[in-house]
Amino acid sequence: MHSEFDFIQNIKNRYTLQHVGDDCAVMPMNQRSDLVITADMLVENIDFRLEWTSPEVLGHKSLAVSLSDVAAMGANPLWAMLSIAVPEPIWNDGFIDQFYEGWFTLARQYGIELIGGDVSRSPDGLVIDSIVGGRVAKGRAILRSGAKPGDAIYVSGKLGGAAGGLRLLENSDRNRGDVSELVLRQLKPQPQLSLANSLQKLNILTSMIDISDGLSSDLRHICKESEVGARIYANQLPIDDELHRHFPPQECLNLAVNGGEDFELLFTTSKKNQLLLDSLDVSYIGEILEEETVIEIINDNGSHALLAGGYSHF
Amino acid sequence: MHSEFDFIQNIKNRYTLQHVGDDCAVMPMNQRSDLVITADMLVENIDFRLEWTSPEVLGHKSLAVSLSDVAAMGANPLWAMLSIAVPEPIWNDGFIDQFYEGWFTLARQYGIELIGGDVSRSPDGLVIDSIVGGRVAKGRAILRSGAKPGDAIYVSGKLGGAAGGLRLLENSDRNRGDVSELVLRQLKPQPQLSLANSLQKLNILTSMIDISDGLSSDLRHICKESEVGARIYANQLPIDDELHRHFPPQECLNLAVNGGEDFELLFTTSKKNQLLLDSLDVSYIGEILEEETVIEIINDNGSHALLAGGYSHF
Repeated sequence: MHSEFDFIQNIKNRYTLQHVGDDCAVMPMNQRSDLVITADMLVENIDFRLEWTSPEVLGHKSLAVSLSDVAAMGANPLWAMLSIAVPEPIWNDGFIDQFYEGWFTLARQYGIELIGGDVSRSPDGLVIDSIVGGRVAKGRAILRSGAKPGDAIYVSGKLGGAAGGLRLLENSDRNRGDVSELVLRQLKPQPQLSLANSLQKLNILTSMIDISDGLSSDLRHICKESEVGARIYANQLPIDDELHRHFPPQECLNLAVNGGEDFELLFTTSKKNQLLLDSLDVSYIGEILEEETVIEIINDNGSHALLAGGYSHF
Repeated sequence: MHSEFDFIQNIKNRYTLQHVGDDCAVMPMNQRSDLVITADMLVENIDFRLEWTSPEVLGHKSLAVSLSDVAAMGANPLWAMLSIAVPEPIWNDGFIDQFYEGWFTLARQYGIELIGGDVSRSPDGLVIDSIVGGRVAKGRAILRSGAKPGDAIYVSGKLGGAAGGLRLLENSDRNRGDVSELVLRQLKPQPQLSLANSLQKLNILTSMIDISDGLSSDLRHICKESEVGARIYANQLPIDDELHRHFPPQECLNLAVNGGEDFELLFTTSKKNQLLLDSLDVSYIGEILEEETVIEIINDNGSHALLAGGYSHF
């Protein structure tokens, strides 16, 4: 049995795919711009549970996850497509209208136009494929592959909240009425488009990815594509404050390191640029190393290998 | 309960969507070209059955249905994305490798690059979302909305074969070894890209659509978008010869008129252009009428309303 990451790598090698392996594919559009495009599939009872969310909130998340990929390229989203396979009971009960209302509320916020997609029946669960296209100045897409030894590693916002919210949902019979901060982090993520825009304007980033699988996994993606290693400082990680109300310290760290779906931005830049980032909601958390084989985390007990502990479908 | 066509129309009106309602969305790309883009979702036990097909053939069909949409715009496909939700048993048995092999065999034929997509786990059936992007000369996409009263209506190839093949599959215990012509029409459709290219070069078409839902449904889509009516001559329909070996004459006509998934091209052009089409594998089947409310079929018994009898998910 192989993971989906191995599988994608395998397909990429076997068929020599040049544009696969980042948050978005980057394709030439015109003399001034490149097109970025991403697709994200959300599957009922794998990526979401209907009893934990509302139709509007699920509509929001379906678009948000793809907007986050566009943000991670330093690009601006322009349009979207939405393919949905819908079980018949849901089709008939108004769920879909509310789902689209949540989707469009977020879409309007960023001026995104729905240009297509597909509607099918599903014999079992709800399946959503969210496709977003955007624009970035030619050659200016921020890839996973540009991190350099010595670069500082930064992350936006707070970490672990979404995974903490998922844990709360799993461990309780909370219903749709639950609006605790952590649960909202899980169910209704906010794409970091505004911050990504500010970072893009600075023109100092060497690599970027959004944290969807979890810091430990997504950092590995950057290291792999950039052919570098990394060192993270545990005491520098911006752990979501709210986590401490619900979990012991070691578990908070675990959620921040391995929890997925925070949809924060993880990026690298030369250390000389650190002052330029002072005004932004970002934290310095470590540095890029030359040795490809080393991805480590430093805590009070010394240095430990940082294994990929984030989410994997297989 | 509303059909998916009503639902899409409803969403289109409510959110004033300009680019929804054709085989592909058409977006500006650069000074010379427009981008066309389409998404098609295929759901196990709704759109296909694993016991009737092979992984390679399913991979082929997943791409072919989207290429057909690109053909129907008179555009050239450039790249594709593929999102799949995969049940764990299938993930582990080599199915997916063979699926991609079938997909890439067709992709190579048209020089199409896989640039992205998503891989997820599915608790139930296999779900595939196929996205294809292409290019068309600026302003030259052939829409559903340009048919004019008096135009001749044409269809490419033969009709009803795919629906006949589905009927054979449903009524027998044929397994994957079955390669009868009709079954292949159903399982392994060929996108009409080459013909579409020839038609586009003639620069005489007023509207085009591919026959995915069925002639009666797809003709209605043209009539609705063009605000016209239509008259079809039953004895002009190019009924698939193979059908007559399996079904009585009235049923052959029914399959040709209402059967979906032939993925042939249905188009309109001014009657004065008929000579230009003589060398192509297309058949004149009727004409566009001014009265929007009339969509009729003429047979030996006279004129009958042509109701939408094709495939609808809901």
